[in-house]
Amino acid sequence: MSFQARPVGVVASTLTDLDTAPRQPDEGAPAAWLVFQPEFAEAARSISPGDEVFVLTWLDRARRDLLEVHPRGDRTRPVEGVFSTRSPHRPNPIGLHRVTVVETDGARLRVDGLEAVDGTPILDVKPVLGSEPSAR
Amino acid sequence: MSFQARPVGVVASTLTDLDTAPRQPDEGAPAAWLVFQPEFAEAARSISPGDEVFVLTWLDRARRDLLEVHPRGDRTRPVEGVFSTRSPHRPNPIGLHRVTVVETDGARLRVDGLEAVDGTPILDVKPVLGSEPSAR
Repeated sequence: MSFQARPVGVVASTLTDLDTAPRQPDEGAPAAWLVFQPEFAEAARSISPGDEVFVLTWLDRARRDLLEVHPRGDRTRPVEGVFSTRSPHRPNPIGLHRVTVVETDGARLRVDGLEAVDGTPILDVKPVLGSEPSAR
Repeated sequence: MSFQARPVGVVASTLTDLDTAPRQPDEGAPAAWLVFQPEFAEAARSISPGDEVFVLTWLDRARRDLLEVHPRGDRTRPVEGVFSTRSPHRPNPIGLHRVTVVETDGARLRVDGLEAVDGTPILDVKPVLGSEPSAR
């Protein structure tokens, strides 16, 4: 059994190198654009600057066959099951990114601090709920 | 272009009726089990009681052709683009659930307050990070 996920858009970012990309948004991740495909733009039309959202991406360069990793790739740390890490390497390589929308421009949303490289496919965008406040 | 997502497990819950299921965890969602397939159990082995995690599910009974909905299905509210709602109906019907692990039992994790019906496929589990604290 499997499910067909399809990209609704793509990340446009100055981040292009996986090896030097920050691992978390508080580690220097730059602002980026979420660029929706025209046929999905309507789904984003009610999002406004200031909104906090989760962006779900498909980390298409990750490995799917790893069930354990060294956290943060640090070989001095013991391996853990991937479900207790944010490693991109996992059975379904879905990235979860919490960002603030800073600008809207037609079928594009500008967001702060997104640790995904240029070209990363976007699967979904969801509002952050009141019970999920940010510390920032 | 599309991506193949595969279930790593399934939700076992007393919730069986989509129509009466709570829409958010603070609306009376019951505790539930995350039951991993044996081949993916290793990925969950480092999760402990007390851990806060995001569970990503595939809402296989949702519609994928809706780009706008009445928030919370309330027809007195104007339609919005689905990306500013938590509607299950969206191009990629991925559910995002923040829960606390209350018990571990081999290839199963018991979690509190999960608003997903029995049998919902699980795609991923991720730890909540320090910059994503809960209000609860």
